[in-house]
Amino acid sequence: MSNDVAIVGAGVSRFGKRDDVSYHELFSEAAHEAISGLENVSPDTFEGLWVSAAMPELTVEQAHVGNLGAQILGITPKIVSRVEMACSSGSSSIRNAWAAIKSGMIDTAIVVGVEKMNNNPAMANKGLLYVPDVTFEGIHGITAYSGFALAAKQHMEKYGTTREQLSSVAVKNHSNGAKNPKAQFHSMGEISLEKAMNARMVSEPLNLFDCSPLTDGAAAVVLTRGNKAKEFTDQPIWIKGAGQRVEPSIGVSNMSSITDWKAMRSAVNDAFSMANIKPSDIDVAETHDCFTIAEIIEYEMLGLAKKGEGGKFIEDGESSLSGSTPINTSGGLKAKGHPIGATGVAQIVEITEQLRGQSGDRQVRDAEIGVTHNLSGFATHHVVHVLST
Amino acid sequence: MSNDVAIVGAGVSRFGKRDDVSYHELFSEAAHEAISGLENVSPDTFEGLWVSAAMPELTVEQAHVGNLGAQILGITPKIVSRVEMACSSGSSSIRNAWAAIKSGMIDTAIVVGVEKMNNNPAMANKGLLYVPDVTFEGIHGITAYSGFALAAKQHMEKYGTTREQLSSVAVKNHSNGAKNPKAQFHSMGEISLEKAMNARMVSEPLNLFDCSPLTDGAAAVVLTRGNKAKEFTDQPIWIKGAGQRVEPSIGVSNMSSITDWKAMRSAVNDAFSMANIKPSDIDVAETHDCFTIAEIIEYEMLGLAKKGEGGKFIEDGESSLSGSTPINTSGGLKAKGHPIGATGVAQIVEITEQLRGQSGDRQVRDAEIGVTHNLSGFATHHVVHVLST
Repeated sequence: MSNDVAIVGAGVSRFGKRDDVSYHELFSEAAHEAISGLENVSPDTFEGLWVSAAMPELTVEQAHVGNLGAQILGITPKIVSRVEMACSSGSSSIRNAWAAIKSGMIDTAIVVGVEKMNNNPAMANKGLLYVPDVTFEGIHGITAYSGFALAAKQHMEKYGTTREQLSSVAVKNHSNGAKNPKAQFHSMGEISLEKAMNARMVSEPLNLFDCSPLTDGAAAVVLTRGNKAKEFTDQPIWIKGAGQRVEPSIGVSNMSSITDWKAMRSAVNDAFSMANIKPSDIDVAETHDCFTIAEIIEYEMLGLAKKGEGGKFIEDGESSLSGSTPINTSGGLKAKGHPIGATGVAQIVEITEQLRGQSGDRQVRDAEIGVTHNLSGFATHHVVHVLST
Repeated sequence: MSNDVAIVGAGVSRFGKRDDVSYHELFSEAAHEAISGLENVSPDTFEGLWVSAAMPELTVEQAHVGNLGAQILGITPKIVSRVEMACSSGSSSIRNAWAAIKSGMIDTAIVVGVEKMNNNPAMANKGLLYVPDVTFEGIHGITAYSGFALAAKQHMEKYGTTREQLSSVAVKNHSNGAKNPKAQFHSMGEISLEKAMNARMVSEPLNLFDCSPLTDGAAAVVLTRGNKAKEFTDQPIWIKGAGQRVEPSIGVSNMSSITDWKAMRSAVNDAFSMANIKPSDIDVAETHDCFTIAEIIEYEMLGLAKKGEGGKFIEDGESSLSGSTPINTSGGLKAKGHPIGATGVAQIVEITEQLRGQSGDRQVRDAEIGVTHNLSGFATHHVVHVLST
């Protein structure tokens, strides 16, 4: 396990329908929180900036948000990029920042993820329709909803995964979100299994409570070279492992299996090998629950449950706050919300706070090793990070 | 000067109005050329992929082009990102690839820049309108045309730069483009000074021949760790220096000077220091001539001409193919074309070919050191690379 790159600052905006703030203000809300707790910072500290944003052109009619982000922060970094990888833009940005620090090019970087989707929900939904290969598959009408619905159907048929198990993921994540003041559905509070099971259908078998919402939100992390970490904080969190992989095709029609994600298994393997951990070492994880079925499959791909037994894992309460491996303590994409470009960064923020013991009512006791998993497309691209105290 | 990262493959598509190919095919045309000359390659060779694309969401209704690019290439890299930095997306992508190789994360990467703008020129123009800070400056009606027109006016008033000098940049670049079979205006051939001077006005004092066009095009480079370069080619080209800088604001209204670009001076200084070169060492350069005035200012910022004497530099023929420092031998953005996401990569391709002696009728004799300069916004973000044999 190496101590090359540390997370020294982390912040997240309130998630939801944020008509109360501009794009600039939303960006700042997260960045300010990430920076405000640090010692010994000045504008010159931030030699690298990555802005993770999936669809600002469509929802707020703004491009070039890498350069805009530098202006908002009042910094003049030596490397700046805006990264778009659809729903995994955030973790992909962190990969680039990590590489730049490791390369010796820079010492310290800030990564800010931001998305304002409720400005223009119609364009946000269009943006989601542009994620598959539009020419060859999107044109036939596939959407994220119908794509993951196929996976849910197959998982139910093949492994006997039940309606109750799918809905139990929603119940758990809303329960966690009720404990997170920044979650989009914080004020909704807990939901009953009955309510989750009987919500209106979106794409059979996925109903409204199986789907993550449109969200406005931002998240930010400050990364630095290991030997500089103590200058900024006495609670650095370490990036111990990382893995990123794609399927050979971005089309759901070409995946070797839609319920066994090879690329995710590879990314997990790379990250866990680098960090020298095994699944049972995970104290807490944020995984990409864009749909309830996704979280169930992710239990399996992470090695927490055997193939086909993800449904049982949630049913047995293993992933609840009091279970063996609490998953999506933030409320996840389901209840915290899913501001596309911010999501992967927000996952890192949640795990950082958990490992620092700052998670309040949803704190996992003695959490020392945490994992994030962020995906895009029909689970065709995956990024996994292992963090530790 | 270090030999850490080498360019071993380079390719560029034909630029222009490419209704004859799909987005996928345009991407492939450049990538295929970059890969086809290499020895010892397989899909596993490419451990990193960066796709540079500024506006596919707007012009071809496709997002997630990083993942799409992996599919088109048939590769499953360990790090993948799509980078958008408006007109400097290409050079920004190369910065990230360079860092990932230097970090030890990967050995070899491919960077592909692609933009298909003529599918939907109205949306392409919208995309350009989204580049400034839309909330604070774009809303007042500023465009790239009017922003650079302000710089032209000031340069003319302050330094006596003339209409003839502006048009001479267009004449030179069209002359070079006439020698480049892949240039958008190749078939137009050379243009007269009279034609360039009397073209219809776009944004006073900039006329049609002062402006770069809407272009479809792609470009690709293969980068590898220095000690692996010889496995792929016996003509590696070395990245000797790099610099990237932003102005404190992305608004033209807040720049300390619109004719003396501090951020470009800093980026040049960083790149030249790293490469240990001075301006007179440059044998050939590709600079960001989005407008004729830009190229004139860039002579000055590169240290080739004194402040205010950029107009004289073109007038004296110093930047022509037979001059002391040939600039934009490809035809530049003006005559080769400006497919936003591809431009920065295409500049690297042109310099690579020049340093390898592969530039045919536009070859600069004995070129050993070449420079690229790529900007975005109202010259608020700059990336400079120094390449050598």
